[in-house]
Amino acid sequence: MKKRLGALERLFPMPCVLVVGGTMDEADAITVAWINVVASTPPTVVMGLRDTRRSLELIRATGELTVNIPSTKDVAAVDLCGIISGHKADKFAASGLTLEPGVALSTPMIAECAYNLECRVTQEERIGAYAIVFAEIIEAHAEESIIVPGTENVIDMDALDPLTYIPGAREYRALGAKVADAYSIGKTLQPDPAGE
Amino acid sequence: MKKRLGALERLFPMPCVLVVGGTMDEADAITVAWINVVASTPPTVVMGLRDTRRSLELIRATGELTVNIPSTKDVAAVDLCGIISGHKADKFAASGLTLEPGVALSTPMIAECAYNLECRVTQEERIGAYAIVFAEIIEAHAEESIIVPGTENVIDMDALDPLTYIPGAREYRALGAKVADAYSIGKTLQPDPAGE
Repeated sequence: MKKRLGALERLFPMPCVLVVGGTMDEADAITVAWINVVASTPPTVVMGLRDTRRSLELIRATGELTVNIPSTKDVAAVDLCGIISGHKADKFAASGLTLEPGVALSTPMIAECAYNLECRVTQEERIGAYAIVFAEIIEAHAEESIIVPGTENVIDMDALDPLTYIPGAREYRALGAKVADAYSIGKTLQPDPAGE
Repeated sequence: MKKRLGALERLFPMPCVLVVGGTMDEADAITVAWINVVASTPPTVVMGLRDTRRSLELIRATGELTVNIPSTKDVAAVDLCGIISGHKADKFAASGLTLEPGVALSTPMIAECAYNLECRVTQEERIGAYAIVFAEIIEAHAEESIIVPGTENVIDMDALDPLTYIPGAREYRALGAKVADAYSIGKTLQPDPAGE
């Protein structure tokens, strides 16, 4: 029996990343769960950011941002970047996270995050109190230790150990065990190869 | 030492849902990892869909869609809905998934998915070969068995047991253990309550 819950803005699970705006001289980081890739031609991320965010001001000023994927050991720092305002406190001093220079762009990345995306803003839409920011991925970076040996760019999830965010329960969860290979397990149900 | 990987369209992890377009008479389901909530005023999801998708035709025809969250036990059916084309095969017959009528809207939901969102399309953008579909969440539904007892609408992740999708490795993973409470663990690092 299903229950109607009303118009809830929840989907499970959400990723949990740190978005940085600004420069090495002046930067802010914000914890973002409302983000994902939406296209590959060109590679593009989209995110929803509350209008009042200091990071958004910095992102608008440079037209750039970085997406940084923290691991479960960074959870307190990640949560802090979602709780305190960049208008009122230096999140880097408070969280212990440090910046490293961007490579392709001028916005810094978070050194402690083993996977980073440098992105250039391409479009901004508005939905109520939210800025919907589209940004093209210009360059991805990964610690060599998290790249699956023998591959060019496959990331080892056990090494990255990313966080997820669960709305409603308001908790962070780790990633679990592998369930199956994609583009593979479904073939066990496939009625007719011509349908492929 | 970090390695440059080029402009990869990857972020970790992604959710993994089934999006349905159409009516009880004619519907199609598609596996979507490029989706998330982006706003709450009004509650809005955004997703990137390849232009050639049959589901997209059906979504455009009705201006509606549903988002359905499968569990790890549905992984073969989920993968099948990503592999075969709705132009060529009836995904419901092949996957064993069944439809139930929408409550607020006319697009059906997937009965086997314990959490569903009925959504009305509000906007469509274009990025290369992708349609970026914005849809307002009109009503959420959950099996009573996955609602945390004593709460109005908090979903129990162990009961929902959702899938995640890992690009690059092309694998489905389950959700892992709780790491910490959000809006809480960060306070252990907070330097000054005035910064809140």
